[in-house]
Amino acid sequence: MTIENAPSALPTDALAHHISDQARRRTGNAVKAMLKFTSKPGVLSLAGGLPNPSFFSFKSLATTVPSPLLLSPEAPQTTQINDAPTPQSSPDLASLFARALQYSMVDGLPEISDIAKQIVSSVYRPAYPDWTVLPTTGNTDALYKTWMTFCNPGEGVLAEEWTYSVMLSSILPLGLRPVPVKADADGMSSVALRNLLENWDTVAPKGLSRPHTLYLVPVGQNPTGTVMSLQRKREIYSICSKYDIIIIEDDPYYFMQFDDYGAKANGTATTASNGNNSWPESLQPTFLNVDTDGRVIRLDSFSKTLAPGLRLGWVTCNKLFSDRIYAMAEVTSQAPSGFSQTAVCALWAQWGLSGYLSWLEGLRTQYRVRRDAFIDALFEQFDITQDHTASGNVLTCYDVPAPGASTPRRALFSFVAPRGGMFLWVHMHVASHPRYAGLLASSGGKHKHRDEAAGELMQQLWQTFLENNIVVMSGTTFCTLTYCGADRFGFDRDALTTDHVRISYSNFEVTQMAEAGRRFGAIVQKFFEL
Amino acid sequence: MTIENAPSALPTDALAHHISDQARRRTGNAVKAMLKFTSKPGVLSLAGGLPNPSFFSFKSLATTVPSPLLLSPEAPQTTQINDAPTPQSSPDLASLFARALQYSMVDGLPEISDIAKQIVSSVYRPAYPDWTVLPTTGNTDALYKTWMTFCNPGEGVLAEEWTYSVMLSSILPLGLRPVPVKADADGMSSVALRNLLENWDTVAPKGLSRPHTLYLVPVGQNPTGTVMSLQRKREIYSICSKYDIIIIEDDPYYFMQFDDYGAKANGTATTASNGNNSWPESLQPTFLNVDTDGRVIRLDSFSKTLAPGLRLGWVTCNKLFSDRIYAMAEVTSQAPSGFSQTAVCALWAQWGLSGYLSWLEGLRTQYRVRRDAFIDALFEQFDITQDHTASGNVLTCYDVPAPGASTPRRALFSFVAPRGGMFLWVHMHVASHPRYAGLLASSGGKHKHRDEAAGELMQQLWQTFLENNIVVMSGTTFCTLTYCGADRFGFDRDALTTDHVRISYSNFEVTQMAEAGRRFGAIVQKFFEL
Repeated sequence: MTIENAPSALPTDALAHHISDQARRRTGNAVKAMLKFTSKPGVLSLAGGLPNPSFFSFKSLATTVPSPLLLSPEAPQTTQINDAPTPQSSPDLASLFARALQYSMVDGLPEISDIAKQIVSSVYRPAYPDWTVLPTTGNTDALYKTWMTFCNPGEGVLAEEWTYSVMLSSILPLGLRPVPVKADADGMSSVALRNLLENWDTVAPKGLSRPHTLYLVPVGQNPTGTVMSLQRKREIYSICSKYDIIIIEDDPYYFMQFDDYGAKANGTATTASNGNNSWPESLQPTFLNVDTDGRVIRLDSFSKTLAPGLRLGWVTCNKLFSDRIYAMAEVTSQAPSGFSQTAVCALWAQWGLSGYLSWLEGLRTQYRVRRDAFIDALFEQFDITQDHTASGNVLTCYDVPAPGASTPRRALFSFVAPRGGMFLWVHMHVASHPRYAGLLASSGGKHKHRDEAAGELMQQLWQTFLENNIVVMSGTTFCTLTYCGADRFGFDRDALTTDHVRISYSNFEVTQMAEAGRRFGAIVQKFFEL
Repeated sequence: MTIENAPSALPTDALAHHISDQARRRTGNAVKAMLKFTSKPGVLSLAGGLPNPSFFSFKSLATTVPSPLLLSPEAPQTTQINDAPTPQSSPDLASLFARALQYSMVDGLPEISDIAKQIVSSVYRPAYPDWTVLPTTGNTDALYKTWMTFCNPGEGVLAEEWTYSVMLSSILPLGLRPVPVKADADGMSSVALRNLLENWDTVAPKGLSRPHTLYLVPVGQNPTGTVMSLQRKREIYSICSKYDIIIIEDDPYYFMQFDDYGAKANGTATTASNGNNSWPESLQPTFLNVDTDGRVIRLDSFSKTLAPGLRLGWVTCNKLFSDRIYAMAEVTSQAPSGFSQTAVCALWAQWGLSGYLSWLEGLRTQYRVRRDAFIDALFEQFDITQDHTASGNVLTCYDVPAPGASTPRRALFSFVAPRGGMFLWVHMHVASHPRYAGLLASSGGKHKHRDEAAGELMQQLWQTFLENNIVVMSGTTFCTLTYCGADRFGFDRDALTTDHVRISYSNFEVTQMAEAGRRFGAIVQKFFEL
């Protein structure tokens, strides 16, 4: 199917078989069913269980938001400009806060759904008209509700070979199994996905049915930092459509997309502001945008764009699916915090969609310059080659042999320069380590010993970082292969699970990231005994 | 066991077998494990996934809280007095809000746990020293996490015969079965519980193991409004200790306890303020207070005491259990909203424990006078007898035959005057209805036809309410027996499941509750064709 022949409204009955046994057992909420009676004017409802709003202990809420232009490169970055306190006396916000204090349906204030709808319709542009949004308490909780709504114990879930660690700790206790799919600089490989599904009966462990759910982080993938292109999304989508697979698009970094790294090698900074709000058109379209079947469940969050402490986000999907997730929320989270909802509405009253997009344009620039500062610092210490492919810029960092030395240069580590998000995923070339060959030979040289030898060196590297007051995240945390045991779904049995570290460039000032790059480089040189 | 010989610290290994299979599979969180490295001074952590706090879009938060004396009978009730805006510039609260904006461990700000600990240690006084608190996003979510942490599919859960409807809609889709225990005016019957457990193999459906979890709402039970005495709690606890059963104490109405109804019949209002904060000593002690084994999981919420929109509460239990609930929160809710946490901390900065208790004393009075207004209005319309038993005051409402009429008076409905919470649970004496005998005879007179005949009349009653612009909640919503099918665990097979309605007296002004009582009475008289 293509967008051109998208139906005017989805025949979601065709998707009903994806609902889990447990979700099918969720019946309607009795209190909700009463609403049609209690909302009539003049009715005295003694049916509900609402506390008396006269006795709520908060009488007003006010928050201060900065100018949405604060983060743009032109604005001063150390002091806030034009802070605008929310008009505490604004009658609209006062009445909104009064509603936010009371129990509500699990989708919370209609104003929050309206904000989400503005973003979805203007930026994500779903391929079918009758999509719905459902506010959530953030993507982690929304993701858990998704497993409970769509997966039965014992099922497999397709995921990139390296995937978000909380996704793994979320599904494993539920008796779900990660099914790894090879990824490249463009994210999950469509070739690998097709091969896996075509040859499922051959490569899959006995008794494991072909999965009907696929999880991915398409932008600023956690941990690999890749950003999936529209072309790749179309390929993945087409395969999922063929094999009737639901796509869970976990996309909290969507607006933090930026250009390839190119400063030191190819000139100066990229991603300049175009001074208007058409910049989101330069972003890779979402899976929603190619979702003609209604098989995408998209998870959005304000955690990365406004503040994690809000615990506020939303799901966008077809109504059949959102109704089932809604039913799950009724017996778990209920609505998001009314205080968080009020704060976001207050911000929106000042900013609107236009201000929000201006803010995000500044935000992505701030993250981009931190990426650049870290990579720039590496250029000062290593001989670096850049391989600009269509799907991403792969940087390989070599040692710099002393002038006149006869030994050839060695590739020490490599990474895809992230085009989005907060993470840089460093592949350490442990085979270049002076001790590697010896470690391998002494232990037998079989594939499992490669992992052992690499693991020993990576542990030593991690310790060296620590001794030099730097903490990096071990790649093993994110490795789906770790949980596959002997069943590796056709993966190369020599594939190492231990040879990556994840670097976050989000949480420091630019000068600190440059310093971090220098210290990182120095430690790596020490590790390789240069 | 008694409190006197409580151990100094719990040997919780003895309780480890209560953990569900799924919860056992939850391993430690990798990010949390990194904390011991990243929290060292001077360390540059590139390991985490934290967004940059310089880019959070909220710069301050301020809320206004009323005087904690606002709700006391002496204070004016229509306007707020002495509203105190939170000092926005207070450095402590500003730094607290800055922390609340960022990701945190799932227990949130330590300040919230401290507030919970103050309440637990000063009012609930657990019987063992090493109890823990864990902040939650409210009791509904905490309850769901409890099922996931302690129950495997197929298990039974002991509950009062009439129980909180959301508890039922929470457990049923998980494949858990409610196991009803007879209740009286004091809540769950200890005699019925002991009989059920002693005779489990005889009365239980084949293949259903004896439950190891028991759920109850001990104060202001939803829907029945009963308040369990300390004596009854001790009996229940002793039985649970004998049969190794965990007690889930869902107690959001704890502080809304008040004296028996007695105004019209026995004089004037009760529950006078004693003007100091020792009043909680008059409340029924909690299950925690008799919990020498560490088998109580107590759920508390600010929803009924401050505002539901906070979505903030906490669990109190032994550390083994709270660690497992914590692990569940890591892949679901994470921490409660930082905005809600900040608001409660701001309130606490003004009120402290002492102000909070003053507030609650006023609050319970406000709910008590609404209960009284409703019942007082019934005295104007019915001939009412009161049966003051140790466990509660049972009011039976009779018609008032015309002077000189020869027909005996009929009992139309009865209820236990609630000594806490927000609900009044009305047992309609459908057998007194002129059409009842005929309906029963025409359909065969078997026990199942009693339910049918009563159901038809109750439906008619509900419609009559609706036509007169009153909505009440049908009792069937709360009936565990409905979900037992043919297996009624030794329950009287003639027990009706349809003959109650729940009245909420929380959400109106006092004068409205009096009006509601008059309209309720008039409709009931019409229904009984008086």
